[in-house]
Amino acid sequence: MVVDLNADLGEGGGHDEEILDYVSSANIACGWHAGDADTMRQCVLWALARGVAIGAHPSYPDRQYFGRTEMTIAPDAVYAGVLYQIGALQAIARGEGAKLRHVKPHGALYNQAACDDALAAAIVSAVRVADPTLSVVGLAGGALVRTARAAGLKALDEAFADRRYRADGTLVPRNTAGALIDDEAQALAQVLRIVRDGSLATLDGASLAIHADTICLHGDSEHAVAFARLIRLELGRHGITVAPCPPAPP
Amino acid sequence: MVVDLNADLGEGGGHDEEILDYVSSANIACGWHAGDADTMRQCVLWALARGVAIGAHPSYPDRQYFGRTEMTIAPDAVYAGVLYQIGALQAIARGEGAKLRHVKPHGALYNQAACDDALAAAIVSAVRVADPTLSVVGLAGGALVRTARAAGLKALDEAFADRRYRADGTLVPRNTAGALIDDEAQALAQVLRIVRDGSLATLDGASLAIHADTICLHGDSEHAVAFARLIRLELGRHGITVAPCPPAPP
Amino acid sequence: MVVDLNADLGEGGGHDEEILDYVSSANIACGWHAGDADTMRQCVLWALARGVAIGAHPSYPDRQYFGRTEMTIAPDAVYAGVLYQIGALQAIARGEGAKLRHVKPHGALYNQAACDDALAAAIVSAVRVADPTLSVVGLAGGALVRTARAAGLKALDEAFADRRYRADGTLVPRNTAGALIDDEAQALAQVLRIVRDGSLATLDGASLAIHADTICLHGDSEHAVAFARLIRLELGRHGITVAPCPPAPP
Amino acid sequence: MVVDLNADLGEGGGHDEEILDYVSSANIACGWHAGDADTMRQCVLWALARGVAIGAHPSYPDRQYFGRTEMTIAPDAVYAGVLYQIGALQAIARGEGAKLRHVKPHGALYNQAACDDALAAAIVSAVRVADPTLSVVGLAGGALVRTARAAGLKALDEAFADRRYRADGTLVPRNTAGALIDDEAQALAQVLRIVRDGSLATLDGASLAIHADTICLHGDSEHAVAFARLIRLELGRHGITVAPCPPAPP
Repeated sequence: MVVDLNADLGEGGGHDEEILDYVSSANIACGWHAGDADTMRQCVLWALARGVAIGAHPSYPDRQYFGRTEMTIAPDAVYAGVLYQIGALQAIARGEGAKLRHVKPHGALYNQAACDDALAAAIVSAVRVADPTLSVVGLAGGALVRTARAAGLKALDEAFADRRYRADGTLVPRNTAGALIDDEAQALAQVLRIVRDGSLATLDGASLAIHADTICLHGDSEHAVAFARLIRLELGRHGITVAPCPPAPP
Repeated sequence: MVVDLNADLGEGGGHDEEILDYVSSANIACGWHAGDADTMRQCVLWALARGVAIGAHPSYPDRQYFGRTEMTIAPDAVYAGVLYQIGALQAIARGEGAKLRHVKPHGALYNQAACDDALAAAIVSAVRVADPTLSVVGLAGGALVRTARAAGLKALDEAFADRRYRADGTLVPRNTAGALIDDEAQALAQVLRIVRDGSLATLDGASLAIHADTICLHGDSEHAVAFARLIRLELGRHGITVAPCPPAPP
Repeated sequence: MVVDLNADLGEGGGHDEEILDYVSSANIACGWHAGDADTMRQCVLWALARGVAIGAHPSYPDRQYFGRTEMTIAPDAVYAGVLYQIGALQAIARGEGAKLRHVKPHGALYNQAACDDALAAAIVSAVRVADPTLSVVGLAGGALVRTARAAGLKALDEAFADRRYRADGTLVPRNTAGALIDDEAQALAQVLRIVRDGSLATLDGASLAIHADTICLHGDSEHAVAFARLIRLELGRHGITVAPCPPAPP
Repeated sequence: MVVDLNADLGEGGGHDEEILDYVSSANIACGWHAGDADTMRQCVLWALARGVAIGAHPSYPDRQYFGRTEMTIAPDAVYAGVLYQIGALQAIARGEGAKLRHVKPHGALYNQAACDDALAAAIVSAVRVADPTLSVVGLAGGALVRTARAAGLKALDEAFADRRYRADGTLVPRNTAGALIDDEAQALAQVLRIVRDGSLATLDGASLAIHADTICLHGDSEHAVAFARLIRLELGRHGITVAPCPPAPP
């Protein structure tokens, strides 16, 4: 049994280097919600040094609210913006002898792309132009991964360790009670159940079938680092290998 | 006799499309002093439609003052920032089936790179990583073109139609009296003299030897468009071909 | 008969100074969709020199798309953001011996505040804190002016010279056919009908009753300046005085 | 014996609220190098709740490099930019019933204003326009405090707990060896010596006379919070009261 663990990097959390000891993939912020050319390069170097796969983490242009603002942007503009961010990171990675493996949209772009086909198609077009061997990471079962696969790209279903789900497979919104799983033991249990059983318990307690190629951890606090260490350890104890998903064939 | 005419594009001047009828190379702003992913794509499309060569026009991160503020930034940060901008434009151009031919720094970055070897080296490193067949455009005879050539890159000496020069070959700073040549006839005369005689008259009236592979026109006003048309016409009348410089061999 | 003519300033259109010869109120961009501290100061000086009333033109934080992106932002954040922008302009105006007369939200913030009570209330709170004698300018009959009046602030109903209306009094969205009135004669007719008859013809041709304290002109092109001149002239020919609305009593 | 302890707030360090338990003045970032309208408001509320005096912490427009980039900006532009930032914070503070007590420039603006009279004058003009009862905080003995006093404003000489000084009273630059005092005991000793003896030991070990109205602590790490607690405790043990400087008379 194998699963990928991923974390968002270069977002100013201050624990980027430590979290890289426990995840197998890093999503690097590209300057539109957080990060800049320097942090991108630093994150690439840190990931390289640990053999962690790297990917772009493009966002809406919204530094003010950390890319979490729902925005209504024309698909053409989303296409250009995502391509801009991927291209910037590709060049910086090339300078360090590294190559991107995946693209995972951030925040509101991620959430809206999970349920908006036109937005998903715009992102997929950008990824394909940037590099058709890149994997697209999106909410498990959502519009983005579906659209990517339909376009012939490799897509990775993502699940969250510490977010609660609704019955339809979407996340409970951040500003809603019960959105986050604060208890480590519960988050750990959710991860193990997702990976081993392909299911989780929704906010209402019902069982939801879910397939996950990759699990998202948060890396923005010391607590998050400790939790990542725990997850990694427990997955190992259960005989589950943590490794990046293989890239699409060229 | 051949010379390249270039103009800065995507800077909000409002006459981008018109100026492209008269120049052979376009330097596209990459979002750090002006422009954004959408204007970059639009400029690529407009240039493609006219067979105009395209290049990146990276800047210091200074939208507030249009990239004209002298800044003291570590070479490593300049390297990462320039690479970020080139990469972003490369990806957007790739989406339209286009390929960059050159990189020309903007504003204060251009001016400081003309006389600061460490800064010039940082820019050259970024260009080489992005694509070693790209030409580096810099002030004729300045540190940037010299450094690029020493590093094995193709470099293009640039001269200005409407800027006055000091005896040492540097530009009279913008905030100094006499910096700009307002008179069209004088600007035209300067261009013809540069191209045909390899010289120009400095602010003091002395003759300065100058080699120019490319001449910079401004494209930010209707007046500028009329002037570009005039230059193009007059160059033709004098048997001078306007065309982009050939790229470096791969 | 009296009406106020207003235009948005400091947005990079290049005709700010000329349009001020024809309008009675200027809405100055405060840096979040366009403009910066320098353009704000310049606009204040230009307006002062012509006796044109000045106001703040706050926006969502969206320079990339010129504040035209619909965004979902918590009312508390809108309150703080609008207050930030008004305060910045108040200070700059104070330096020139000027005082703001009004606040008019920009773009998507304007449109959403015309139909979202919570958003309107957030803006109104910010205005009241900044200066309770400021007038709030909003879409005629919309949520913003209604909320402002309910809170005891003076509010100005605004109508547009060159935008078409739907039957419910809202604007035809910019990206819809027929949104803009391109024909000068038709725009002029709409203004005269609004001011004299308190009505206009909707996109469907029906008559819509509308009260307007102020008419918005666009100032971002030479054509716009010519149109402003025409409107001003024609209003005069019809005996209609152009003047800013009187401020609220302290 | 009384001294003011100040810390920079709203810069994303994550320990803003805790540091406020130990300082008497807070310098709030105004969005140009860090922070935004929301963090400004939050910092005002936190400071109010503890009776900590608040001030503006304006910067060059340089979020990319945290306001630490030396920039060459015309005094007029610095004036407008500083005024913009102060005005924004004044309005937000007014909304919470608070009033600014001081203005302390940030980073490169602070350093350049300590030795550039024209820059210092631009900042002083902005402060005077914003509110002539505001105190100007600057490097002890530098151009900013000197210029402020000459202009009739109250100025506060600032010293640093954890920075080393050169013989001329300027700070050892951050990128130079020995710039920072890492050892808590040494930093504490420097503070006590400054407050009690009006002197400190320069990098070369010589004694430098220094007058300090306020001591700057850093608040951006847990370690910084612990150090602030220690300083506060030790000052108390030595009979030194920690309190904001009295404002200038109106």
